[in-house]
Formats: sequence, structure tokens, C-alpha cells
Amino acid sequence: MHKLINRPIDVVREMLEGFARAYEHDVVLTRDLIVARRVPKAAGKVGLVIGNGSGHEPAMIGWVGPGLFDVNVPGEIFAAPDPERIRAGIALADRGAGVLLLVSSHAGDILNAEMALELALGEGRTVEMVRLYDDVASAPRGREEERRGSSGLFFVWKIVGALAEEGAPLDACRTMAERVRDRTRTLSLALRPGIHPLSGQPMFELPADELEIGMGVHGEVGRGRMKRMPADAVMERMAEWVLDDRPFVAGEEVLVLLNNSGGLTLMELFVLYRRLAQLLDERHIRVARTWVGSYATTQETAGFALSLCAVDTEMKRLYLAPADAPYLRQC
Amino acid sequence: MHKLINRPIDVVREMLEGFARAYEHDVVLTRDLIVARRVPKAAGKVGLVIGNGSGHEPAMIGWVGPGLFDVNVPGEIFAAPDPERIRAGIALADRGAGVLLLVSSHAGDILNAEMALELALGEGRTVEMVRLYDDVASAPRGREEERRGSSGLFFVWKIVGALAEEGAPLDACRTMAERVRDRTRTLSLALRPGIHPLSGQPMFELPADELEIGMGVHGEVGRGRMKRMPADAVMERMAEWVLDDRPFVAGEEVLVLLNNSGGLTLMELFVLYRRLAQLLDERHIRVARTWVGSYATTQETAGFALSLCAVDTEMKRLYLAPADAPYLRQC
Repeated sequence: MHKLINRPIDVVREMLEGFARAYEHDVVLTRDLIVARRVPKAAGKVGLVIGNGSGHEPAMIGWVGPGLFDVNVPGEIFAAPDPERIRAGIALADRGAGVLLLVSSHAGDILNAEMALELALGEGRTVEMVRLYDDVASAPRGREEERRGSSGLFFVWKIVGALAEEGAPLDACRTMAERVRDRTRTLSLALRPGIHPLSGQPMFELPADELEIGMGVHGEVGRGRMKRMPADAVMERMAEWVLDDRPFVAGEEVLVLLNNSGGLTLMELFVLYRRLAQLLDERHIRVARTWVGSYATTQETAGFALSLCAVDTEMKRLYLAPADAPYLRQC
Repeated sequence: MHKLINRPIDVVREMLEGFARAYEHDVVLTRDLIVARRVPKAAGKVGLVIGNGSGHEPAMIGWVGPGLFDVNVPGEIFAAPDPERIRAGIALADRGAGVLLLVSSHAGDILNAEMALELALGEGRTVEMVRLYDDVASAPRGREEERRGSSGLFFVWKIVGALAEEGAPLDACRTMAERVRDRTRTLSLALRPGIHPLSGQPMFELPADELEIGMGVHGEVGRGRMKRMPADAVMERMAEWVLDDRPFVAGEEVLVLLNNSGGLTLMELFVLYRRLAQLLDERHIRVARTWVGSYATTQETAGFALSLCAVDTEMKRLYLAPADAPYLRQC
């Protein structure tokens, strides 16, 4: 037994039950294991829904609440929820002004979301879907639509969540999701694999003296390995790739997320951020706000993802707007 | 190189510089590496200070802000800051109504805090010190004062932080710190050691099929090892020890903290909490609020600590009062 769980087959249900109990002031767990706000959003506002595999906690269950999601439909470990449960999640989030279904771009998630969309439209609901991607290592420039979703999508959740909370119509929420997506870039790096909860085995193989750059959020093969090097040298290479991809240019203002893949220490992340801040200064790119921590994890994988999003005044305002979910509170 | 850092000798300074830059809207870092609020507390209110070793991030640097600490004096890795720096921290936190110096009970921390207290009194300041402890594994019942400080002290920081923010006098803050301490109990458990940032070596040895119960926050030897067992069985043993130590009894209302020692997944912590909630139900102990996450870590140690605090109405109110620090925000 590699993890502190009971039977692996029960881990998702037991996790969700424990989560819902711990944060019972914030959320409810339905009988079909959908996470919804304890107090539903006011009628007449757009509902925000996402379905995704489990094993990335606190994402996405931790971001259900005012200013963020209305409903999260968690699947099994690293597996998209089935279309019928996503349909039920859409129904639960429908407050009469339509529902926006956000999807992190992975084959299974897209397939099941599209089927759920058909089911929801079939029962007469107003619902739209936006496919989101940000991982620069998963497809080259010019083929952004083929890229995978990674932790930079957090910028979309937060900004669109605030917009929906303010009562913006469905069209405006969809457009904003696309605009924030198109301004976001992410690159990840791993030192040590996490352990898969079901198999009990490491999620990938990596020699102890190497790093893997561009690994996906389920341990998908990245874009290359290199010998370990000091934190500053690692950040210089990663920042250059991310900054040049879009590119981010002098005078722009960016949001920064340094997301812990699970097993890195905050100490290491702060050392890494120190160098990033210097590099952004050198390029005359201003930082609107930085968050460092475990937002979306891949079990206890030791690694991190660097995400940047270039914001305009309105996006920045929405990013800083209130949120009150178990793993994201701000006043 | 086992961690993503630069030279080990620079890790604390670089971490603090990165942290202060990331959270520049919340804190400032002085030239002698003391973390203070960006906007000092209003004059006429009690200042709250703590000094502690680094390596436990986000504690305590992450809890500097309105409703929590005024000043944190971080030492080197797992080492108490020197008395002169603590004295400087007390001076920085003095807003004319006295300063409360809180100390997590470890030999070096107590020694240096006592010397700092003398220095501060010598320069005419009004300052009091409270020694805090909660780890039930470090000394038996009846010898509570010999116990070590562990993650349950978080309840003290939060409650006394709110009280000082409201303008309560120094005496009331000191008394409240002692009262919350005396109602708090913690027990920890580890599965895998973290890696010491300076030596690059595991912080302790533990066979892969065993657990260690009662380990200290720096990897100090615990109270016993046992073969690995399912999460529910682990929680049953830990909860019994913690509940019976004080004891916590039917009808009481408790705060719960399941603190990740660093390398455990949130998934595992939620599975563990599920069983704890059942056990508290069986004993008719009510839960006022539960927080699950990485509050005070021991690098990437895979393990957790269970902390309980029996609250009265006033303590509960202060626990739920606003806080606005980098790693603890609530409205």
C-alpha cells in the first residue's frame, strides 16, 4: 500500500464524501457524486460547469462557490466523467440564463462534454461549451487548438467565474473564456513522478539526475529531458519558452501562477519565482498578481507549471474580484 | 541535487525574496529578512510576533497580514532566529499597545525568544511571551508543559490574531493564547521522510511498509512504528489518542485541522477526514469548522497531523473572523 487510502476502488467516492463533509458550509455532494454550491447562485445568472478527472485536488472540487464554479462533475481518477453525469451537472447549474460548460482539452473530456451538450440541448436547455488549452509543450505555435489543457486554465475559471457572478449574459461569458484562453500560456516541469492511486505504481519513469520539461497533467510524455540544473537556470529556460510562445511583450501586464504539481516544496517555488520576477523586470513586463501554491496537482508529482496570462483592465478587475470557494477565498 | 534550488546556503534568503516579491501587495521584507505587513496595524493595537525556523512553508511567513501576525522573523532551515533579529521584529510590531511574542515550544526557539524578550524589555518595550505546545506524543498527560509545538498552534495564531486586530489589550491576548493552547491537541503521522534542504538527505529512516506515529515537525523520533494499514484504521487509532488525551467530550464543539506535512495528497487527507467525521459523530462532538491542507509543512514529508481545539462561542467567532494574509484569506 503506497498511499493512505482504503480500497483503491473506493478512493474517489470516499475522497468526495470527506471533502464535502469538511467543507459542508460551502458545498453539497449529490447522490451521483456531483459537487454543487451549498447556496445556489441567484436565478437569472449564467451557470458555470466543469467536468474532469479526479486526482488533481484541490482542482476542480475546491473551486465550487461564489465567484467560481456552480457545479463540478468529478470523474474517476484521471478519467472524464460520463456524459449523463455532466448533463445532470448542467441541469443543476441552470438558473434560467443558460449554462457555460468549460472543458480542459483532453480527448476523453472533449468527447464526453460534447455528448453531454447534445443531451442538455435535447432537453431544451441553453448551453454553450468552450474548449480550453494552454500547454505550449503539447503542440507548436500556430497549432494552439491542438494543445492540451493545463493549470493556466485557472485564469479562465477565475475571470469567467467573476463575470458570471456579476450577471453577464452567456455570450459575454463565452467570449471572455475564449479571450482569456488565447492570452494564456503554460509550461510544466517534473523531477519525480507521483504514484497512481489505482496501480500503486509511479506515473512515469525519470532518472534521478534528470528533469522532464513539458509533461502533461496525467504524466503524459513531455518535450524533452535534461540533466538537473540549479533553479535559476531551470526558470530561465522555462520563462523564455513561455514568454516567446505568445509572445508576451514589454508594457503588458500579466497574471502569474506557479502551480505545484504536488510534491514540490513551497520553498522551491519561491526560489523559482524570485528568478522569474527578475526576468519579467528585464523584459519590462509588469505583474498584476502572482499566486504560488498547489492549485491543480498530479498526485505527489514533484514538479511545477509556470502559467502566464496577459490581462487588460477588465480581466484584472475580474481576477481580483471576490471568490468564496473552499480552496480559493478572497475579499 | 535533490531539490530545485540554487546553492543550499542561499535557500532561505532566496525563498524569502521570492515570497516577498510574489506577495508584494501583502508583505514587505526588511533588509535583515524580517517579514512584516505591507500596511502596519493601526496604532494603539497589540502587535503579534513569532520567530521560527524556515522549511515549514507556508507557515509562518504566509500568515503575516490583517487578522494574523504583524511580523514573522524566519530563521535558517529548522533553526530559531537569533535574539537580536527577534528583538528587531518586536520593535517593528510595536504600535504602542505592547507586543505579544508567541513561541512554539522547541528548545532553541524558547531560548532565543527569552533572550529577545530581555532585550526588548531593556529598551523599554511592553512585551509578553507565551510558550505554546500541543503535540500529545512528545510528553505524557499531566506533563503538558513539556510537550512540543506542532501544527495545532495554528488555532492560537488565528484566534489571537483576530482578537489583537479588534483592539483587545495585551493581557486579554495573552490569556486567550493560553486558553486556546490548553484546549488544543495534535498528533502526527509519517509515511515517507522529506529531504533536508542543506544535506540533501532524507530527514529520517522509515521502512517502506511502516508508519511512524508522533513524529515531530523536524523529523524528531515519534512514539512508535507500526505496519502500514488502511486509512480508516490509521484515523481510528490517531483520533482515539487525540480525543482521549484532553479528553474531548460529547457536546463540545471543535475546530479541526488536518495538516499536510508536505508530500501527502489532498485526496488522502479527504479520505482520512471522512473517517474522522464519522468518529466525531459517534462521540457526539460537533465540528465548528474544518480546514484540510498544507498549513505547516516539513519539506516534502509524506504525512499529516490531526489537530483538535475545543472552542467556546467567543473562540469560534474569532476563528471565523476575517483574515487577509498570503496563505489565509477569509471574509
